[in-house]
Amino acid sequence: MFKILDCTIRDGGYYTNWDFNKVTVSEYISAMNNLPVDYLEIGYRSMPMSGYLGKYFYSPIYELEELRQQSSRKLVIILNERDVKPEHLNDLLLPIVGLIDMVRLAIDPQNLGSAIKLAEVIKKMGFEVGFNVMYMSKWKLYNDFIENLRGIDGIADYFYMVDSYGGVYPQDVIETIDLVRKYTNCRLGFHGHNNLELALVNSLTAVEHGAEIIDATILGMGRGAGNLKTELLLSVLNTKFDIQLDFNALEKAVNAFEPLLDKHKWGTNLPYMISGSNSLPQKEVMDWVTTRFYSFNSIIRALQNQRNKIKDNQQLPLFKPSKTYKKAVIIGGGPNAEEHSKAVMQFIGNGNGETCIIHASAKNAKKYQELAVDQFYCLVGNEGQRLETVFKGLGTFDAQCVLPPYPRKMGTYIPAQVTDKSFELSQIDFTTQVNDSHTVLALQTAIKLGAQQVYIAGYDGYNEVPLTELERTLVGENEHLFDAFQQYTGITLYSLTPTKYKSLSIQSIYSLI
Amino acid sequence: MFKILDCTIRDGGYYTNWDFNKVTVSEYISAMNNLPVDYLEIGYRSMPMSGYLGKYFYSPIYELEELRQQSSRKLVIILNERDVKPEHLNDLLLPIVGLIDMVRLAIDPQNLGSAIKLAEVIKKMGFEVGFNVMYMSKWKLYNDFIENLRGIDGIADYFYMVDSYGGVYPQDVIETIDLVRKYTNCRLGFHGHNNLELALVNSLTAVEHGAEIIDATILGMGRGAGNLKTELLLSVLNTKFDIQLDFNALEKAVNAFEPLLDKHKWGTNLPYMISGSNSLPQKEVMDWVTTRFYSFNSIIRALQNQRNKIKDNQQLPLFKPSKTYKKAVIIGGGPNAEEHSKAVMQFIGNGNGETCIIHASAKNAKKYQELAVDQFYCLVGNEGQRLETVFKGLGTFDAQCVLPPYPRKMGTYIPAQVTDKSFELSQIDFTTQVNDSHTVLALQTAIKLGAQQVYIAGYDGYNEVPLTELERTLVGENEHLFDAFQQYTGITLYSLTPTKYKSLSIQSIYSLI
Repeated sequence: MFKILDCTIRDGGYYTNWDFNKVTVSEYISAMNNLPVDYLEIGYRSMPMSGYLGKYFYSPIYELEELRQQSSRKLVIILNERDVKPEHLNDLLLPIVGLIDMVRLAIDPQNLGSAIKLAEVIKKMGFEVGFNVMYMSKWKLYNDFIENLRGIDGIADYFYMVDSYGGVYPQDVIETIDLVRKYTNCRLGFHGHNNLELALVNSLTAVEHGAEIIDATILGMGRGAGNLKTELLLSVLNTKFDIQLDFNALEKAVNAFEPLLDKHKWGTNLPYMISGSNSLPQKEVMDWVTTRFYSFNSIIRALQNQRNKIKDNQQLPLFKPSKTYKKAVIIGGGPNAEEHSKAVMQFIGNGNGETCIIHASAKNAKKYQELAVDQFYCLVGNEGQRLETVFKGLGTFDAQCVLPPYPRKMGTYIPAQVTDKSFELSQIDFTTQVNDSHTVLALQTAIKLGAQQVYIAGYDGYNEVPLTELERTLVGENEHLFDAFQQYTGITLYSLTPTKYKSLSIQSIYSLI
Repeated sequence: MFKILDCTIRDGGYYTNWDFNKVTVSEYISAMNNLPVDYLEIGYRSMPMSGYLGKYFYSPIYELEELRQQSSRKLVIILNERDVKPEHLNDLLLPIVGLIDMVRLAIDPQNLGSAIKLAEVIKKMGFEVGFNVMYMSKWKLYNDFIENLRGIDGIADYFYMVDSYGGVYPQDVIETIDLVRKYTNCRLGFHGHNNLELALVNSLTAVEHGAEIIDATILGMGRGAGNLKTELLLSVLNTKFDIQLDFNALEKAVNAFEPLLDKHKWGTNLPYMISGSNSLPQKEVMDWVTTRFYSFNSIIRALQNQRNKIKDNQQLPLFKPSKTYKKAVIIGGGPNAEEHSKAVMQFIGNGNGETCIIHASAKNAKKYQELAVDQFYCLVGNEGQRLETVFKGLGTFDAQCVLPPYPRKMGTYIPAQVTDKSFELSQIDFTTQVNDSHTVLALQTAIKLGAQQVYIAGYDGYNEVPLTELERTLVGENEHLFDAFQQYTGITLYSLTPTKYKSLSIQSIYSLI
């Protein structure tokens, strides 16, 4: 029979910042005492790092002592090889000799050499040593890695293949095992991620081909899309391998973490599936999907181009406006740009050739289309699709579109009808922090258009408190951009409509008409 | 390339009773127009059935006409072979000729013969015909089925293997295909369930071994643990088979159903994993887990014994009390039995040999242990475990335990220390509706003990409104039991503590002491 290592606390910590309440941990430990699980990985050990990281990122001695008393299982901690130098090992590990049975190292395959040096010291301290080597799908690309593999026998007790991207298939597992087996006799392990719901079948395949230890976590709790679910592995063992199982204990373990699942909602979903099937870091995909307004198609095209090493965006003619405007009115995507559109339109009037409109988003643009003033559109994220929707196929659309400076992080969709009206900015003058948001584009366009007065409508901010993390990020970014713009240009930004933004001055539209 | 049939509306209907709002369906249909999905199964057609079943269970003509206009895909409806007679086919199908491309039949493998007769008529009407044959893991057991397989060629356009229990592994898929291929050249399909998160790998295996059509649903929406997720299948196709994909459309399809997922929370979980890995009907497991208080271990043991055809519970000596009692006090599991325990204990006093206690649940039993009166324990569900916990190993426990009549639906855990004190009831006298709940046991025990006055404490009912379905069921069942007991015995049941139960009379404990 193969062994099982449950790393719920360690890997689940990515969602809780490594804090878990006492009751959860106790219920977990006591359930595990009644389940056929061999090792419990309960946290990291780490030298002091900046920022708040919780209890199980540092795993203080008093906690390990308590767990050692409660648990009848072998206990494991893990070190990030990247962050640990040989001179740290005494501090990190001497105090836990006798409390902890195995020390694992999370290892970038390109650092296997230095990991072996660390491991020699750890081994001498009397610990079992586990190598958790990441990015298994890339191993065959690294010659150094292959060479170093020969050096692990006698040092690593377990050599784990980690499917970091959650993108490997059973056939890949078999091929990786075949590769590794050429160079080492070390006992093999497998740590699967569940992006493509293949964690179970990959783990069973690994076992079938000789792996002797499998990682799992309760409810799959773990970074990104999460891991092989301990309850799934055990249910399958019970029927497929006839292993006796205390289902009440298993239920208790599951129940202990269910409130956390309700709160943090880990597990696979479309973005994780995409990052998995493209073997791309899920962190990047999630950042793009959740904190930016790029269209899914742009993100995926960018990711796939990145994978295929294709440069994914074309260089456009530079944005060089033929005239300048005294006033620019920036229209945002908030409901107030529609709510107060009559007044804003009256304020703009025919513009006397002195006023232009800059649409940070096309969301409210249809309302303003009838105005006979020059209008500019910021083309970023999924604004290309939005233009098509708002202007029903763009048959009547006749205005210039402004894109971020080249090279853009990902291809921006430009509808065919506006390609000849699309231009890119040469650079962003007033900030270095952002170069591709709706707001930065709109403000830089105002600069390029020579505007001396800049008004804003439809930047409402968010009403619901508490803000989501995405909203907080966007609000913070916009506040920075408004501030930076005003400092750089000396121009005061006036919001004509109600706003929650603190860096905008307010001038009611109704006071101006 | 194989074909994809998306059956989100039809199979997802198990969660919404086949009603979906207009916007959801429109977004779905329009997203599917931009995705490489060949068939959309949008509902059942059915003769009138009792009870409310929604729009897509009957799929009215006006709705099919509208969908036909909106969708550029082939449309499919399904019939339950079990419920359809040849004489129904004109009513069900003639009106949809030209609107619907394929008619599928959901078929019990033992009815394959009559399904073929239905299919001949359907085929003549001009439809493509799909056979969705359930319980693929059991096919090899049915000789009739194998014989009938020879008759499907030329009648079924697709012959689907349905993994009804969600318990098959890739190897089983291969073996089933090999079996079927001996008897028919029909194009094969696969409909997987996701209990063990094997729906994707099973589907890919089926394709690899010649299946030409695969079922999937958005977010896996579907009965029980749900199906292969369309977004997962398409993401994998995009990278593994280089199929172009409009990820924006895919995102829209997913977004359309996400509010329903939040509400109905389908997907796999421990009970579904267990039913899957045991190849048992998930409906039964879910009923047991959610509406009864059986322990997980009892349920699983019962299921496994059922699978292995082992009779899973032992016959115990009959409960034949050596004496009768004038008064019985039934102690329930509600907080009021503890809150008012001092008063209830004073009321019972030393009992004068005339009063006994019946613990419907051991939850509050510890409080009453010190009373020197005869006490009886109802042993059902997970009360065995509870006894051990409440009485810390049962060292000091000395009382009789009463179990439901033999044969019990599932084995009841009896702690070793109480086996010689455990007895079963010969029958339940006052109702035929329930024979194994805490309450029915307690009341029948009171009858067996000859009680002429029966008091109840700690049956609080539930405070939170609205009640969960489980709570409603339990409350309804208990009300029935209280009524039935009072009618059968002529004895009035008095609750000594506050209660929400309407069929109990109330006599404040403080009025009696």
